[in-house]
Amino acid sequence: MMPGVDALAVRVGSALLARAARLAIAESCTGGLVGARVTGVPGSSRYLLGGVVAYHNNAKMALLRVPRRMLNRFGAVSAPVAAAMARGARRVFKADIAVAVTGVAGPGGGSAGKPVGLVYVAVCGPGRTRCQRALFAGARQRVRDQAADLALIMLLEHLEEVETP
Amino acid sequence: MMPGVDALAVRVGSALLARAARLAIAESCTGGLVGARVTGVPGSSRYLLGGVVAYHNNAKMALLRVPRRMLNRFGAVSAPVAAAMARGARRVFKADIAVAVTGVAGPGGGSAGKPVGLVYVAVCGPGRTRCQRALFAGARQRVRDQAADLALIMLLEHLEEVETP
Repeated sequence: MMPGVDALAVRVGSALLARAARLAIAESCTGGLVGARVTGVPGSSRYLLGGVVAYHNNAKMALLRVPRRMLNRFGAVSAPVAAAMARGARRVFKADIAVAVTGVAGPGGGSAGKPVGLVYVAVCGPGRTRCQRALFAGARQRVRDQAADLALIMLLEHLEEVETP
Repeated sequence: MMPGVDALAVRVGSALLARAARLAIAESCTGGLVGARVTGVPGSSRYLLGGVVAYHNNAKMALLRVPRRMLNRFGAVSAPVAAAMARGARRVFKADIAVAVTGVAGPGGGSAGKPVGLVYVAVCGPGRTRCQRALFAGARQRVRDQAADLALIMLLEHLEEVETP
């Protein structure tokens, strides 16, 4: 293992290569962490098409085609928006599979209904879209790191369970 | 300073806030590292609109509007493409300023004319686009980290020199 290359991202890469599947990423609260980890693996250009860091809601709408009324109704940190971000990324990049992360990293931005640490991760493959809700403890960077971990873990699970090589 | 928040990204954030300037990011070889560092700063949603990780050339064309003939003529790792990525990101996100990074992180992908470690960074503001070429030593992660450093440094210089608060 090369220094700085994380084992989870290597496993995701191997699973994508084994299935000849190409990946797209949509990130909000992780801001590029998932992309940075995926591209830390040498040769990742063989399976990563690209990603969007959709920090502002305008970016979620313009680049990932998340409907404005969905953002207004459910808020940016919600299961429907996470799923829409994943579907949008898959479509925009013409990818086989896409992963999306949206959440409240803190320290600001939290509320009673949507506290700091709340994260939604969605994975969208050819057949289905899965979404998972998590509530992570810790400060901003810890929340972001755990959210990126979950994105890679869900991606790996989806690839291993659904997309048979 | 909070742990995990880097000083350079904090300075970039302060410079953007002082000028009420909003940022967009386009990354190829850094794969999200610049975005991850910018968004590591609490409150970065006040000035970061978003970013594109344009790993595949199709993503550079479709999301950042880099012309195909420019990619064919100069290659993805070139000054014209870095500048076009920055201009594209600025336009697509409706940002005031944008930074773009393209390079050969290695270990593969290098050639005599474009060796591993070759990186172009471009910054595009309202008035002008600047581009800088660098040749970084070290393995993949080291090249990527130095490229992300240069992106933040050039952003800061551009803000401090050109955009008076």
